Amino acid sequence: MFSSVLIANRGEIALRIARSCRELGVRVIMIHSTADRDSPALRLADERVQIGPATARRSYLYPPAILEAALSTGAQAVHPGYGFLSEDADFAEMCESKGLAFIGPSPSVIASLGDKTQARNLAAAAGLPVLPGSPRPLQSGQEAKEVAGTIGYPVIIKAVAGGGGRGMAVVREPRDFPRAFAETRANAQAVFGDARVFVEKYVEHARHIEVQVLGDLHGGILSLGERDCTVQRRRQKLIEESPAPGLPAELVGRIREAAVALARRVGYVSAGTFEFLVDDAGGFFFIEANCRVQVEHPVTEMVTGVDVVREQLLIAAGRPLSLRQEDAVLRGVAIECRVNTEDPRRGFLPTPGVVEHFVPPGGPFTRVDTHGADGVTIGAEYDSLLAKVIVWAPDRDQAIARMERALSEFQVTGRGICTTIGFLQDVLADPRFRDARHTTSLADLMVAMRS
Amino acid sequence: MFSSVLIANRGEIALRIARSCRELGVRVIMIHSTADRDSPALRLADERVQIGPATARRSYLYPPAILEAALSTGAQAVHPGYGFLSEDADFAEMCESKGLAFIGPSPSVIASLGDKTQARNLAAAAGLPVLPGSPRPLQSGQEAKEVAGTIGYPVIIKAVAGGGGRGMAVVREPRDFPRAFAETRANAQAVFGDARVFVEKYVEHARHIEVQVLGDLHGGILSLGERDCTVQRRRQKLIEESPAPGLPAELVGRIREAAVALARRVGYVSAGTFEFLVDDAGGFFFIEANCRVQVEHPVTEMVTGVDVVREQLLIAAGRPLSLRQEDAVLRGVAIECRVNTEDPRRGFLPTPGVVEHFVPPGGPFTRVDTHGADGVTIGAEYDSLLAKVIVWAPDRDQAIARMERALSEFQVTGRGICTTIGFLQDVLADPRFRDARHTTSLADLMVAMRS
Repeated sequence: MFSSVLIANRGEIALRIARSCRELGVRVIMIHSTADRDSPALRLADERVQIGPATARRSYLYPPAILEAALSTGAQAVHPGYGFLSEDADFAEMCESKGLAFIGPSPSVIASLGDKTQARNLAAAAGLPVLPGSPRPLQSGQEAKEVAGTIGYPVIIKAVAGGGGRGMAVVREPRDFPRAFAETRANAQAVFGDARVFVEKYVEHARHIEVQVLGDLHGGILSLGERDCTVQRRRQKLIEESPAPGLPAELVGRIREAAVALARRVGYVSAGTFEFLVDDAGGFFFIEANCRVQVEHPVTEMVTGVDVVREQLLIAAGRPLSLRQEDAVLRGVAIECRVNTEDPRRGFLPTPGVVEHFVPPGGPFTRVDTHGADGVTIGAEYDSLLAKVIVWAPDRDQAIARMERALSEFQVTGRGICTTIGFLQDVLADPRFRDARHTTSLADLMVAMRS
Repeated sequence: MFSSVLIANRGEIALRIARSCRELGVRVIMIHSTADRDSPALRLADERVQIGPATARRSYLYPPAILEAALSTGAQAVHPGYGFLSEDADFAEMCESKGLAFIGPSPSVIASLGDKTQARNLAAAAGLPVLPGSPRPLQSGQEAKEVAGTIGYPVIIKAVAGGGGRGMAVVREPRDFPRAFAETRANAQAVFGDARVFVEKYVEHARHIEVQVLGDLHGGILSLGERDCTVQRRRQKLIEESPAPGLPAELVGRIREAAVALARRVGYVSAGTFEFLVDDAGGFFFIEANCRVQVEHPVTEMVTGVDVVREQLLIAAGRPLSLRQEDAVLRGVAIECRVNTEDPRRGFLPTPGVVEHFVPPGGPFTRVDTHGADGVTIGAEYDSLLAKVIVWAPDRDQAIARMERALSEFQVTGRGICTTIGFLQDVLADPRFRDARHTTSLADLMVAMRS
């Protein structure tokens, strides 16, 4: 095992990674921006390095500063967490060229799966169903509109380099296409530094199902089952659960197998997620791969008993997978709610401020991953995720009741601070969610009904 | 289900019970003494009633005040928690006579198992092995000494009405007997209001193994497996785990069966624990029954997935057990550490005071049951248990590493406050504990070595 790991991230995921490192006896080196200097996440660092200002492009997204921190502290490996540089093949390459183990798949796998058209093509070649769409980035608005016409509306325009649910636009009629195309390209250039886009059939009533995969350096590949991440607002996940409720076991089995087949084909190493849509006719389609640990990995941990971050560390150190496929049994039901510092009454606008009173829930089968605490400053520079509340129960009704209890005891107040707790409670109470009849449009519909 | 339950307790167990009530949609009524007026445990109360002064005999141990609180708030049931009146058959009887469901076994079962000589006799009649000892309370010092001589030294003198590891004395030589006998009787009278004692063979190198049993009102009985509570200081449990490490599966199976046989024989209803000693020759002996939820119930919850308090509530409401014996499978390993506000360098003297900075651990497979928080006053009136840290992992080595990580991040400071965290860390690091070669004398030996 590595003697020390640098965590190239912040917030709850930095804390999360630090815990698995410590349990393996690994020295924890954390980086932070000036804005995060007092973050409670840093309390688990054996050593901390301030690498730059609040602006992510000059700190958490700036490889030279991170690499220097790693080399000057004698780190043997870098864990990128999620977001920031976690799916940046160049950064992974830079780490390896400096003799640092990058905790994730190989740079070439990140590069090929990170390009969404290439990932689609790889999936199709591995025999996975993909949605009708353009097999390569579109060169012009005219070409794009022709492809969209062939596919049939509605379509979705996606950034080739997109991720995290950003850089997409749904187009329902041909006349809206040119503007959406131009806007998506401009956004993609601004956010991902890559203007390329492609077009895919848009599935109106979909369930979002994803499969957690682990692969080791010895060719071992397995799935830790699926997660249902259907509750999304503007393609940002709000609630995730495992197993997927209300779907035929046979369908879920085929989705799991598809993910493993694709992972095997690309020689996937480390933890990764393969995302699918399930339409209302029971068809499933690969949409994208995420070459990193996901925000929602705890639901998988709670139903399988596997510490996903520990596995990432062991895999990167050359160890074989610590379990066999037949041991990866899902037990009971786990649900995660993402608590963001946003104001649901003002279009989920982030509400930076200072948390004054922070009492997270506790109790049986209840986990809270958070960097929140009394006195924590929530800056406008970063993601608004404050806490993840994860519960487990033997069945889904009990898990929902437990989540309702947990959210009801969560206290977060502070100057300017709002949270999404009330909105999450509304979703949990909605009969469509309770009966697992919901689709990816549920949360947006609920927002629309309110305004 | 009841519409409302009064929780006749305080601290972490009041909070724990409130959580299960809330998940079942049950209104929570909490009582408190003047000393506990600002306890964070009360934040989960829908209604709270101040029933008396700090002195437990005039509040948490005073049935009239509790019954009045229950009747005036319209409570339908009373959950006694552990300690206080939880094993008081008269209190259970009073509840029932007022039309309040007492969440626990019937008054007659509490009475017969609460009398330790009667419990021994019932166990023997059900075919369970018991230690050589006096079949009834001893009338005189002379009779006691004769019985001790017949049994052979060392012996242990126990209060007939004892519990919670109190009211016992080990006697190694006949000449020490008379004084120990007199002292134990005096203590028993003072603590339990009942001077009766009996004598039993003392097992020098023992493992403490107990079985969690559930019984419903329809004759259903099952075990949720065993807990190993061998790490004790002066017969106070410090660390508990499930399953019991390093014992033959066949032996553990026989102990589980013995517990179920005794529970069945007495018609046990609700959650209960049957305690055994295992000697170094692999023999096991019933020692006592606890007619209540135990402090250490969370380890059972983490390996079985069963919410023990929820089961108590459902059983009291007349529902059959929610699982079958074959579904009560222990998965992985759970360990609990009790964090007390005591000073290990001064004979584990309780350290009352005000907690100023309280940061409990978190993360995967880590649970903390606590009423601790910034600003909480720890009074001298009550038990010094501040928090229970419970972890789960697929195997015991990982569970120990996880507990070490969890304890290492636990921050508790305050004026006058000490905790047992450092001592717990020493036990976890001890090779005898790690190899599961420890006996009930381990912690006392460690304390003796230090002083």
